[in-house]
Amino acid sequence: MQRRPLYPPFTVGVDLGGTNTVYAIVDKTGYIIDKDSFPTQTPSVEVWADLLAEGIGRMIEHHSLQGDIAGIGIGAPSANATTGSIEGATNLPWPPPVPLANLIEARLGLPVKVNNDANAAAIGEKAYGVAAGMNDFIVLTLGTGVGGGVVCNGHLLSGARGFAGELGHVSFPFAIDRICGCGRKGCLETVASARGIVETARRMMAQSEKPSSLREIPEDQLTAKTVSEAAKAGDELAKNVFDFTGECLGKAAAEFAAFTDPEAIILFGGVAKAGDLLINPMRDAFGKHTLHLYRDRVRFLISSLEGANAALIGAASLPLL
Amino acid sequence: MQRRPLYPPFTVGVDLGGTNTVYAIVDKTGYIIDKDSFPTQTPSVEVWADLLAEGIGRMIEHHSLQGDIAGIGIGAPSANATTGSIEGATNLPWPPPVPLANLIEARLGLPVKVNNDANAAAIGEKAYGVAAGMNDFIVLTLGTGVGGGVVCNGHLLSGARGFAGELGHVSFPFAIDRICGCGRKGCLETVASARGIVETARRMMAQSEKPSSLREIPEDQLTAKTVSEAAKAGDELAKNVFDFTGECLGKAAAEFAAFTDPEAIILFGGVAKAGDLLINPMRDAFGKHTLHLYRDRVRFLISSLEGANAALIGAASLPLL
Repeated sequence: MQRRPLYPPFTVGVDLGGTNTVYAIVDKTGYIIDKDSFPTQTPSVEVWADLLAEGIGRMIEHHSLQGDIAGIGIGAPSANATTGSIEGATNLPWPPPVPLANLIEARLGLPVKVNNDANAAAIGEKAYGVAAGMNDFIVLTLGTGVGGGVVCNGHLLSGARGFAGELGHVSFPFAIDRICGCGRKGCLETVASARGIVETARRMMAQSEKPSSLREIPEDQLTAKTVSEAAKAGDELAKNVFDFTGECLGKAAAEFAAFTDPEAIILFGGVAKAGDLLINPMRDAFGKHTLHLYRDRVRFLISSLEGANAALIGAASLPLL
Repeated sequence: MQRRPLYPPFTVGVDLGGTNTVYAIVDKTGYIIDKDSFPTQTPSVEVWADLLAEGIGRMIEHHSLQGDIAGIGIGAPSANATTGSIEGATNLPWPPPVPLANLIEARLGLPVKVNNDANAAAIGEKAYGVAAGMNDFIVLTLGTGVGGGVVCNGHLLSGARGFAGELGHVSFPFAIDRICGCGRKGCLETVASARGIVETARRMMAQSEKPSSLREIPEDQLTAKTVSEAAKAGDELAKNVFDFTGECLGKAAAEFAAFTDPEAIILFGGVAKAGDLLINPMRDAFGKHTLHLYRDRVRFLISSLEGANAALIGAASLPLL
């Protein structure tokens, strides 16, 4: 890794995914000092915790940062900040609840903060990203699923049991003909996730005769990324897919604004890389549908955290909360 | 007023209405020590501020509480906690912005907190009412309009410019055929306000042949209160009106839960006096429509603040925030 000045406090971020566990030491600016990973699949969660603690310990020692680490942040699916555990069903190899914070605290003697990916993203944007200096904003994570992280009056909302900000599972009329993985109808996730975008593309291809480069892609190889690339290359149908998705996001944001009067709504994650393809129709739909109090008052932004490491950097920000 | 022990700290609450300005000294338990009022219509807002300051000053002196008042709370329509001013259009005789906090602070030398009615209600429930000890709850004020006050992680949400919690203006499919005073379609307010209940009763009478005592009431005398009384007396059509309203509230609450993971949702205001007529269908609809994470986890409560004085007591709680 390149040499540059490092700014304390230093934290350790851990991105716990179904395939790999990635961890890094990060400085105050969000700069990754060092990074490593190992496969998440282990005989038991204790073995996983041993591997992670050993890896982090070695990395801290290698950089002579013993005593300089403010804490460890772990971002994980269905992680609950209040209990420090993974509580819901996930694609991880261990049955819930998984007491992440306790397992790692016991091994390293450092404070551990656990949160779900979307909340980690929100804190990451405030610590290192486009939400620097903001006290009121909403992050929508658009990936395999859709999550939300809400900061209001400078506080990350966690709620009575740590399940605040599940904005991917707010239901809207524009998606009422789609069934969500959660069993409900109309969830924002059904249109604004990567899978939702593929579904919209499929429907638009079926409902029109419009020529499109997407028609040449085998159905099982159609992804949000291929649709995005086609749209950027000027494919009209692919652009329509993002117009629809952005419009839905704008209508959703129009309602979300009434809850926390945010200064900005930030798109994060793989699908958000579509950038203006989503932001422009989103801003238009928001202006058209929101209450006058919020019109022209909310900024629409794309995450500035480095793509491949965004979740990791978000996790590293958790001890700074 | 009856004699009973008084518990400090004492605060002054002011309920600023279009017709009357009511003010009171309140103790820590929400007990009204003394109360007075005067007509809000005055030649200027300065004259109004003089009258209020003189009245409060006299009342404090009369009870020998000089030096014992923690602060003054003013609940007013469209009041903004961040600026201490009334900012939107109201039925008050003065054009906005009205710098309420400054006007009264300058005259009495006591700290003044200003907020809208719904936020005052939320703090009132936490200070003196059914939300005592709760850190995560939502108050829905059901009156002429519908407002929201949201407490999450112990903080009242105000947002970037003080306009958080406008839950009466979140739009839902169940009301999409109703136009709101704000100009949008489908706002919760169009069904759950007093006016919304009358509109539902009118529609149900027009759409069915069902006999009902409501049909004997001249159309211009039909109010939420008369519909509620008919329902309590067993009128089937009137009960259907509250079933529908409660179902809508439950569907709305099902979506609201995803934002702040509340422990309780509390109904406040005139319409809420219908009690179980609203709460029972609301609880049922919530259970049917919400994400599994929130099912069976949210309590549905009616405000315990004394009906006629609820807004006043809510205002008195603002300095305790």
